[in-house]
Amino acid sequence: MPAISAKGMKMPASPIRKLIPFAEEAKKRGVKIYYLNIGQPDIETPSVALEAVRNFDMKVVEYSHSAGIRKYREKLADYYDRNGIHVTADDIIVTAGASEAILFAMNSCMDTGDEIIIPEPFYANYNGFAINSGVVVKPIPSSIDNGFALPPIAEFEKAVTPKTKAIMICNPNNPTGYLYSDEELITLRDIALKHDLYLFADEVYREFCYDGERHKSVMHLEGLDENTVLIDSVSKRYSACGVRIGAMISKNKKLMATAMKFAQARLSPPTLGQVAAEAALETPDSYFDKVLKEYHARRNVVVSSINNIKGAFCPNPKGAFYVVARLPVDNSDKFCQWLLEDFSWENQTVLLAPATGFYATPGKGTDEIRISYVLNVNDLKMAMNCLEEALKVYPGRTI
Amino acid sequence: MPAISAKGMKMPASPIRKLIPFAEEAKKRGVKIYYLNIGQPDIETPSVALEAVRNFDMKVVEYSHSAGIRKYREKLADYYDRNGIHVTADDIIVTAGASEAILFAMNSCMDTGDEIIIPEPFYANYNGFAINSGVVVKPIPSSIDNGFALPPIAEFEKAVTPKTKAIMICNPNNPTGYLYSDEELITLRDIALKHDLYLFADEVYREFCYDGERHKSVMHLEGLDENTVLIDSVSKRYSACGVRIGAMISKNKKLMATAMKFAQARLSPPTLGQVAAEAALETPDSYFDKVLKEYHARRNVVVSSINNIKGAFCPNPKGAFYVVARLPVDNSDKFCQWLLEDFSWENQTVLLAPATGFYATPGKGTDEIRISYVLNVNDLKMAMNCLEEALKVYPGRTI
Repeated sequence: MPAISAKGMKMPASPIRKLIPFAEEAKKRGVKIYYLNIGQPDIETPSVALEAVRNFDMKVVEYSHSAGIRKYREKLADYYDRNGIHVTADDIIVTAGASEAILFAMNSCMDTGDEIIIPEPFYANYNGFAINSGVVVKPIPSSIDNGFALPPIAEFEKAVTPKTKAIMICNPNNPTGYLYSDEELITLRDIALKHDLYLFADEVYREFCYDGERHKSVMHLEGLDENTVLIDSVSKRYSACGVRIGAMISKNKKLMATAMKFAQARLSPPTLGQVAAEAALETPDSYFDKVLKEYHARRNVVVSSINNIKGAFCPNPKGAFYVVARLPVDNSDKFCQWLLEDFSWENQTVLLAPATGFYATPGKGTDEIRISYVLNVNDLKMAMNCLEEALKVYPGRTI
Repeated sequence: MPAISAKGMKMPASPIRKLIPFAEEAKKRGVKIYYLNIGQPDIETPSVALEAVRNFDMKVVEYSHSAGIRKYREKLADYYDRNGIHVTADDIIVTAGASEAILFAMNSCMDTGDEIIIPEPFYANYNGFAINSGVVVKPIPSSIDNGFALPPIAEFEKAVTPKTKAIMICNPNNPTGYLYSDEELITLRDIALKHDLYLFADEVYREFCYDGERHKSVMHLEGLDENTVLIDSVSKRYSACGVRIGAMISKNKKLMATAMKFAQARLSPPTLGQVAAEAALETPDSYFDKVLKEYHARRNVVVSSINNIKGAFCPNPKGAFYVVARLPVDNSDKFCQWLLEDFSWENQTVLLAPATGFYATPGKGTDEIRISYVLNVNDLKMAMNCLEEALKVYPGRTI
């Protein structure tokens, strides 16, 4: 039997999904599960997007341009313009989700053995994309104690080597919900310029900011046009994860010409998804007002519930729809599995993501979990009750 | 400015698309262009597929399972069963087109510097996927003189090194239209087993066989379950290139578990495309009867027209919707560009793909072109007239 690749052996299994079989077993026993493990929102996709799909009237579902349908890219450029991000249709390559945008960016900028610095905890799949591209992730630590703010410059300086080609951030952050400040972005710019690095910014949660905060993009930074690569997606913005439409955006012409070669090799992004995404740009503000109000209320439930649990701590992040919380447990992997295998309260339990999967450094995150607040407020309250009750009886509790 | 990756520099620009700017210039001068360069069929997508899209009634366009919607995979397994390919839903990972299936297969089986043997000419993007995965393509020659049959075993034996991990074929073939025989597949099996290699087979043109021939799949081969990887796509079968739905299929459990990790990292294949693809499985036989009759007639027009041109030669391939023909020209790249820049006949001209882009060996294919017969018979006749007239006056003609 031919061998599996070393790369394939190194690929991590999805840390968010590994507990799903245990959840399915619990369901078979009749236990109700609150799924707080993955970022699949329950929010409805805007009706303008769904209607556009239902009105699809082409006779042939053709390939689109490899960079995406021109009209969609033009409207997308207008959307960015409204967000203070001044790009044209030619600065945009439409991709199969942010995932493909990250792969294009890594492959265009980095070779086997090159390094990318990412503050940890970080979105677990960055690791998979890095392995896919032969790239080595150099994590630098952010800490729950200051809400997962940008690590100090000294940490970046320590991590930079001659092989470092890029820094990557997610802002607002998955998994922490942290929203970077102007000052933090300027720090990143200075490091990128000093060491001649690319700055990849995954900004798919741009719209999800709370407490009156506004998102600042790396594309707002002056003097960094050749270095910045914006990674985007409509998945979360319009609760349309299944359309698989993202984008890689940069004003660096040489980089985009290179990425286009990868885009041409795979022919085109999904046509039907682009139809939905283009129409979604007409989503009324009232949709976002409602959605943001909803997420804001959910965050408040989660954060205050956790902080009311003895020995638990949750920062109050300003963005996205995730929190990373510290729990009084010996081992978050064991705890999350125990919740499904050995625990129920009023015949209910909760599926959480152990935070270990979001750290590249072994041993980190063992007392932290990530919660995606993608359920309604009532369900979240019940889920938080489950968590509180569980922590009273979990054999590995530390207080 | 940070550097572009070496990998990015090595990526070939699409050989099929590089002449498009010249075609656009010709169009601006009022010249009608017959586009025979790309595999975008003009055939209508089956109405069952389009109706399923129009009837999409979910409120949220969610991620599907990373391996694809279970029900779709089950129906797909039934489709394969009807084609003598006995697989289950668990042997299938639904992908964003055949492109992603090839990337998953290469990444799961091969590391940087590993080698894959591919008979040339071959589908140009295999090269791009290989560079993307750090894999080296070792071309072995097939020849127009015997219709691009499988190269002799001796050529494979010469190409095998300790770094060889796989052989890849496309059957029926893009760009040549060649359909492999039972005997040729058995030869491939023996080589794969002898050297413990994977055998990747891109069979996206399975349905497109002419002159009463039937397609034989690598999955029909006995004793090769651990080695074979079937690459598939609905793009051509249902003239639905834009849905971006393909599949990677293998009975090798360890390989599929590895590929699943790559699939999970990118979350899911397109949901809307899967809706179309699932419905397309209900396409009536009458659709294929009509389509096959049409392509058969087109092939006959193209092959006989070319063979009527003095000094030109075209084999009569049994499958797909491509031919590679030899023309009496000094240089097919120059000729194809000249057709757009300096030639028109009755204010019409033709966009062909120079075959050089389908060879990995420099200097090969310089008197060959690929034609995709994706236009109706009348247009094809006009296009062939253009070609014949062009060859009478092309300054670089060799007879």
